[in-house]
Amino acid sequence: MIENITPCLDCGRWPIKRIVGDTVTVEADVFRDGHQIVRAALLWGRKGDRNLDETPMDALGNDRYRGQFVVEENARYVYTVVGWTDYFASWQSDFKKKVEAGRDVGSDLLEGIALLEKICGRAVKNSAAVEELKALVERLKRSSHQDAVRLALDDAVRRLAAVLDPREDAMVHKPYLEIIVDRPKARFSSWYEMFPRSQGTEPGKPSTFLEAERRLDDIQRMGFDVLYLTPIHPIGITNRKGPNNSLVPLPDSPGSPWAIGSSAGGHTAVDPSLGTLEDFDHFVKTAQEKGLEVALDFAIQCSPDHPWVREHPEWFRHRPDGSIKYAENPPKEYQDIYPIDFDTPDQEGLKAELLWVLLFWIRRGIRIFRVDNPHTKPIMFWHWLIEEIHKDYPDVIFLSEAFTRPKLMKVLAKVGFTQSYTYFTWRNTKQELTEYLTELTQSEMAEYFRPNFFTNTPDILSPILQTGGRPAFQMRLILAATLSPSFGIYSGYELCENEAIPGTEEYMNSEKYEIKVRDWNKPGNIKDYIALVNAIRRENPALQYLTNLRFLPADNDAILFYVKSTADMSNVILVAVNLDPFNTREATVTVPCDSVGVAPGQAYVVKDLLSGATYTWSERNYVRLDPQVNPAHILRVEQRL
Amino acid sequence: MIENITPCLDCGRWPIKRIVGDTVTVEADVFRDGHQIVRAALLWGRKGDRNLDETPMDALGNDRYRGQFVVEENARYVYTVVGWTDYFASWQSDFKKKVEAGRDVGSDLLEGIALLEKICGRAVKNSAAVEELKALVERLKRSSHQDAVRLALDDAVRRLAAVLDPREDAMVHKPYLEIIVDRPKARFSSWYEMFPRSQGTEPGKPSTFLEAERRLDDIQRMGFDVLYLTPIHPIGITNRKGPNNSLVPLPDSPGSPWAIGSSAGGHTAVDPSLGTLEDFDHFVKTAQEKGLEVALDFAIQCSPDHPWVREHPEWFRHRPDGSIKYAENPPKEYQDIYPIDFDTPDQEGLKAELLWVLLFWIRRGIRIFRVDNPHTKPIMFWHWLIEEIHKDYPDVIFLSEAFTRPKLMKVLAKVGFTQSYTYFTWRNTKQELTEYLTELTQSEMAEYFRPNFFTNTPDILSPILQTGGRPAFQMRLILAATLSPSFGIYSGYELCENEAIPGTEEYMNSEKYEIKVRDWNKPGNIKDYIALVNAIRRENPALQYLTNLRFLPADNDAILFYVKSTADMSNVILVAVNLDPFNTREATVTVPCDSVGVAPGQAYVVKDLLSGATYTWSERNYVRLDPQVNPAHILRVEQRL
Repeated sequence: MIENITPCLDCGRWPIKRIVGDTVTVEADVFRDGHQIVRAALLWGRKGDRNLDETPMDALGNDRYRGQFVVEENARYVYTVVGWTDYFASWQSDFKKKVEAGRDVGSDLLEGIALLEKICGRAVKNSAAVEELKALVERLKRSSHQDAVRLALDDAVRRLAAVLDPREDAMVHKPYLEIIVDRPKARFSSWYEMFPRSQGTEPGKPSTFLEAERRLDDIQRMGFDVLYLTPIHPIGITNRKGPNNSLVPLPDSPGSPWAIGSSAGGHTAVDPSLGTLEDFDHFVKTAQEKGLEVALDFAIQCSPDHPWVREHPEWFRHRPDGSIKYAENPPKEYQDIYPIDFDTPDQEGLKAELLWVLLFWIRRGIRIFRVDNPHTKPIMFWHWLIEEIHKDYPDVIFLSEAFTRPKLMKVLAKVGFTQSYTYFTWRNTKQELTEYLTELTQSEMAEYFRPNFFTNTPDILSPILQTGGRPAFQMRLILAATLSPSFGIYSGYELCENEAIPGTEEYMNSEKYEIKVRDWNKPGNIKDYIALVNAIRRENPALQYLTNLRFLPADNDAILFYVKSTADMSNVILVAVNLDPFNTREATVTVPCDSVGVAPGQAYVVKDLLSGATYTWSERNYVRLDPQVNPAHILRVEQRL
Repeated sequence: MIENITPCLDCGRWPIKRIVGDTVTVEADVFRDGHQIVRAALLWGRKGDRNLDETPMDALGNDRYRGQFVVEENARYVYTVVGWTDYFASWQSDFKKKVEAGRDVGSDLLEGIALLEKICGRAVKNSAAVEELKALVERLKRSSHQDAVRLALDDAVRRLAAVLDPREDAMVHKPYLEIIVDRPKARFSSWYEMFPRSQGTEPGKPSTFLEAERRLDDIQRMGFDVLYLTPIHPIGITNRKGPNNSLVPLPDSPGSPWAIGSSAGGHTAVDPSLGTLEDFDHFVKTAQEKGLEVALDFAIQCSPDHPWVREHPEWFRHRPDGSIKYAENPPKEYQDIYPIDFDTPDQEGLKAELLWVLLFWIRRGIRIFRVDNPHTKPIMFWHWLIEEIHKDYPDVIFLSEAFTRPKLMKVLAKVGFTQSYTYFTWRNTKQELTEYLTELTQSEMAEYFRPNFFTNTPDILSPILQTGGRPAFQMRLILAATLSPSFGIYSGYELCENEAIPGTEEYMNSEKYEIKVRDWNKPGNIKDYIALVNAIRRENPALQYLTNLRFLPADNDAILFYVKSTADMSNVILVAVNLDPFNTREATVTVPCDSVGVAPGQAYVVKDLLSGATYTWSERNYVRLDPQVNPAHILRVEQRL
């Protein structure tokens, strides 16, 4: 019996996720009837490879086995467990007990020799090992009884027999289980989201890619490594939205970038006001040189002016009067957007075109896509699409922008999305954050759901940011950047922009419908703070992992306290955050000695990587956080005293 | 997506177990992309039936659904979940929001009508419902806009559309999941184990079935309903064991009943000293009339004199010199027993014969088998055998006598054993009992593993019984009989027999190797106590279930306190047991009001069903148990004040 393999998602239906270089640890229950000795091994390798590697599993007791292997390549892998009876070892174990009990073992010895001869006879091919075992059998036969007994009990015989064992009752667990092995950025990334058209200096005038390049140094200095651009495609004219999502556009209203497509082209074109495809390529190359990988938005929807509307009317839903239905989520209406009808009779044509769109940008060097509203498209479409892309481009990262019900968000990650947006923006209290992070890091989700904690998005300006001022922006940044190895901000965050349409989480005068021109060096900005936090993330590997998070006690509900460390404890980071942006809060925090790698009672020096101050800490420590000064400590264990 | 169905064992590989008349509650996550309304239903029925019944599942929120059905027959059942989109309800829900928002819904109304027409057109066959829906569509078309809107929003339309819905995107979860539905005795049974040959009155002389019948009244009076006989077959002569498992039998040594087979026959014969097959039939019938169902032992092993040894030498393991190997578990040896070699080339012949043996006794009216050492035979053999028997005799109960590693014990229950022996005899402290019972009643084991708590067996006289005297026998009886709905004693327990071979759990002068003659009315016996406990079990349905067990606080580690109740709280039993057979112990026990069905602060009257005393109890109560008087209370809630 091979049972209860871990990790294993939904009976093997979905792959787990790992990063190149990761060690994959697999456990399973392996057992059979009776008292025979059972062996187990992992079979693993790249998906599709004819021959799998084999790694022995160690017995943990209680019929549980564990093995490990390292995934070296950015590719899809498979693994499974094989179990078999080690008849010779079982014989040897019984034989030993009988010898020790002083029993007559003459007949048993003959049985052992017969077993070895059978193993020789059935060995797959002749080899040095077979010759060695044959010689050994001869020796056993020729030896005196006493010598033969000693020889038969030798561990070397058992090992040799194990090597040649034909494993006649071997059982391989089906189905094989799968792993998506991603490149490191899938786990550790810092995202900056911006509207390329809003990077200019002249009010009301959209910037081009060329002008937007001038912002790259600023973004680089803040320490980001992914630059996510809202859609860059031509924007429709029909039903174009005006300021604040109004139905009446102003003469110069640029339209929402998500109203994709015009006479200038669709999903494979760039908006003429941004420049040409060559300008885009130049932008991507310049960004790359500054360590910024450009991510594009993949929004499967069209403006009424998109070429597909004319070329493929059957890809859209029609009203009884023949007109095409615009998007809605009653009572909300999106008059400038036509959704795609995935129930179209031309499903194959549609899928081929969408695949082609991605490949178009991939061939221009793009390897990260932030996918807009994937939860309103068929789940199994994503499964197909991501697997198709990964066949040739395993380095492509897909970020799922699904803010919806938990199970739908989870299944999108299961079918293949590399990273996922989360509920982080709506988790504010210590209890909310602790519960949510515990689920993300300690439940089965850790096997497949990689959170990307955005502090804000063009659609989400959370109440705490609306009211909490600069301290709230710093506090939420620290949380996003230290709780999750992947995090992001939407531009304007560094300026602490916080004006919302009252009673909503929508930005007032949202950039979705207007060209913004900002003073990027406005007083009160937190650019240096962001740069410092990103530098701390880069320099401290403990912050580059998710599941190493451990919450620790702080006797004040407004202070969240946690530790992250590398497996070897060479990098240990303690973080204390004041969740209250309005008041100074203090707490006694408790640090179990094992969480920082000290002996009970041993003191240690911590350095606050934000302020530079050092403290001598022990099991209980006093923390005081004034949000006006700094809402958090990021303490590195420097020296164990 | 249909995910996370519960109950479901090992991805549907193994059946769950229920009793005739049980309500089966099934839950599943059912969801799809987008915002459409999803419906879910259970499909269920007898395994092999062409048409399954359908029961709607209720939405519990968070995409979780729950449904129930009742299993009425002693048979194997299957169940699964089907999910589909309710397009009309989705349309109606959106339509309602638009109407409420005061939007122009003329086009939407036409879409709704078109949906209803499509449903009419695709309905499986014409029916009154189709006619009704068609008429409704006509009314919708002829009505004024205002009337049509009102009509379209009517819940009756939605229900009618739901009835006729062709469910074009319906998805049925595979594989179907299975249930073994057993008769009530599989859950609630009281076993008495005895050696039929030891029921006589003349020292050294084996009793016949006819003589053994004289014991039936006594066993009936103690309140048992299953009478399990150790093997009744002819016993071998070769290597017959003498007293206390010695290799040298005395002239009158009767041999171990598990050394099955002699020239008088094998597994389908009765030992001549017990009488004839007809005597056996008479015994079974007489027992039946007294409410005692006879269970036989099924031990797949042979004495060297078994007819199979001659007829089927290939079913046994041979030494290099050609002789047959006797059983051993080094360094232990069982010279009087030949094990069967399930790796025999004649596997089919062997399996057919073993099936035939069971059918032989089944056709003589036997419906309960206690299976000896099933864990030393192939796991999948039992899966096959039990399923084969259940095809024609679903009322057959198999008790697994496996005392081995946890996972092997569990998998035997998973593959089909109706009841299982347990670790109960080795669980003595409050912590041990609480942990073990929590696993049995609250973990997934509750779906498939039905414990049968034996206080003792011919192989197990536990230390607490060896040293604790009569109070220990009473105490362990109460635990077995009230913690588990199925329990058993091995004869001699009622006489508090406690002489062991020093340093072992073996009985001194074990009945396995000698004829015993006992004074069944020996002073100090606990027959009346057993009778009382069994009567309490019969009269109180709360004690006839396993998973209704709930441990409650008692502030003394020697006092175990728990409650069992029926779902409707009409029968509530509180049990307090003094685990220390040597000393009087007292405790304050805490009874949460919900556990006994009273309001906070409300008092209630409990009656001790063992002593007849009544007490007025509230949340905290004082308990004092003198093991010399009575080691336990079994309190029934009589009246809520």
